[in-house]
Amino acid sequence: MEKFEINILGCGAALPTPHRFCSMQVVNIREKLFMLDCGEGAQIQLRRSKIKFSNINNIFITHLHGDHCFGLIPLISTFALLGRTSTMHIWGPRGLIKVFQPQLDFFCQGLSYKVELHEVDTHTPQIIYEDRSVTIETIPLKHKMPTCGYLFREKELQKHIRRDAIDAFGIPVSQINNIKAGMDWTSPDGEIVPNHLLTIPADPARSYAYCTDTVYKPDICKQIQGVDLLYHEATFSNEHKVLATTNYHCTASEAAAIAKQANVKKLMIGHVSSRYKDEGVLLREAKAIFGETTLANDGICIKL
Amino acid sequence: MEKFEINILGCGAALPTPHRFCSMQVVNIREKLFMLDCGEGAQIQLRRSKIKFSNINNIFITHLHGDHCFGLIPLISTFALLGRTSTMHIWGPRGLIKVFQPQLDFFCQGLSYKVELHEVDTHTPQIIYEDRSVTIETIPLKHKMPTCGYLFREKELQKHIRRDAIDAFGIPVSQINNIKAGMDWTSPDGEIVPNHLLTIPADPARSYAYCTDTVYKPDICKQIQGVDLLYHEATFSNEHKVLATTNYHCTASEAAAIAKQANVKKLMIGHVSSRYKDEGVLLREAKAIFGETTLANDGICIKL
Repeated sequence: MEKFEINILGCGAALPTPHRFCSMQVVNIREKLFMLDCGEGAQIQLRRSKIKFSNINNIFITHLHGDHCFGLIPLISTFALLGRTSTMHIWGPRGLIKVFQPQLDFFCQGLSYKVELHEVDTHTPQIIYEDRSVTIETIPLKHKMPTCGYLFREKELQKHIRRDAIDAFGIPVSQINNIKAGMDWTSPDGEIVPNHLLTIPADPARSYAYCTDTVYKPDICKQIQGVDLLYHEATFSNEHKVLATTNYHCTASEAAAIAKQANVKKLMIGHVSSRYKDEGVLLREAKAIFGETTLANDGICIKL
Repeated sequence: MEKFEINILGCGAALPTPHRFCSMQVVNIREKLFMLDCGEGAQIQLRRSKIKFSNINNIFITHLHGDHCFGLIPLISTFALLGRTSTMHIWGPRGLIKVFQPQLDFFCQGLSYKVELHEVDTHTPQIIYEDRSVTIETIPLKHKMPTCGYLFREKELQKHIRRDAIDAFGIPVSQINNIKAGMDWTSPDGEIVPNHLLTIPADPARSYAYCTDTVYKPDICKQIQGVDLLYHEATFSNEHKVLATTNYHCTASEAAAIAKQANVKKLMIGHVSSRYKDEGVLLREAKAIFGETTLANDGICIKL
């Protein structure tokens, strides 16, 4: 199975705690690394994680609150000190350039590599990144400022070759890629061997949706329908539902309601307010609505 | 003895490591807290330290390289989330306002307290802060950009009362402060008791000099002559002396030469380059010139 992993480096809300850094994750798809948000201390968490973080070429910021982006300029500075040469692409909502270009100009003069800032549309879902393995699209969210989540869709995988069948029919190595791609095999004496005898179906393509910060916004369910994993903010418990709405955040129950309506395979809740001594309350409230829920923790790695 | 403590929260150079955060310290003088530099993760280190950091009202930045100030805006944001109301004063070289005012305007809108940015002269020593316990003055340093260190001079302490003598002469409580301040005592029947019979001399006033980042700059020795503790940058070992000079940094030997020439009581070296697997080399080189040297470490507290 090709790699598709999500490394949680920080999953706290606005206030970091000794156990939770602010929002940041690294998605590893077939050894391509994508960073999601970049809270304070990102470079510290990256070092701790053993991720080969010099391979990160794209960082996606959901919105320009400090707990989602204070680690960006320090990380960019450190990359330069480490001698980076490859271009870094930073993606984020309107305002990204106005806020970060002056900081780049001041703190990152004479950088050893290029940093390109890309502002994305937060109103309509758009594919903003595509390569051979994955597409990444924006998920319009609603918070105190322009905000979007990000949806990773793995591209169709190739079929697996049945080594025994290839040997039995004496098929040359040069034809393997064609057969993986679905072609039948015609032997030198004209016999046609159908593809299904030579291959095992491909693993289903996987998908991951990252949705934080946002009010309860059920109109995202269509876009994220059936994803393998949904990370959704769950800043508050039911007890603080009014506070959640006032501050454009969600309760754990609301996150679970999105998961249920979107029929996702698994839900992970995060962006947990530091007020909860017993964070289990959030997990219990979510699980009451959507059983396949887990609570994010700094340092964990989820393999899809 | 009144409190005069230096808490080292970070003492690494440009690149933080798992063991060393970037530059930051908290000086506690009679329960007044002063922060020196504010590297990335300052709020994380402050929480770990058990310092009552809401009591910090003054932060002194040596220069505007990121490893000395990336933690500032996140810390200011967090203070607001914690409901701070007292004014915070930030001191630093020319450029402070240009760099940080836009970030304050963007990330810290509607703050619950005032933040005042004060630019200081980095060319001539100046007393920039004074209260009943301490004066704080700038120490002109030389680095790639305007830079100054900070010198804390405790004010003269009061004499200690000899409780036994006070009792023996029947001196009323109302006179204690006068006697602490040096007055003799005249009894109701005209007998004069000289002050030295009633008091024990005050503890000597203490001083602390914080000098980072800088090239070898012996002209600071006059200003910091005889301080109880000098914290001086020692980014490189003798092996990398050329690199030190090129980058406007010091070797450990140069830091020790300053300590010796300034006749300080103790030297602590810090701002150690992350390149040294064996940091002991820096300590050994410094101690060869100035015996009373220690190497800074994150989390330690030095009591003067």
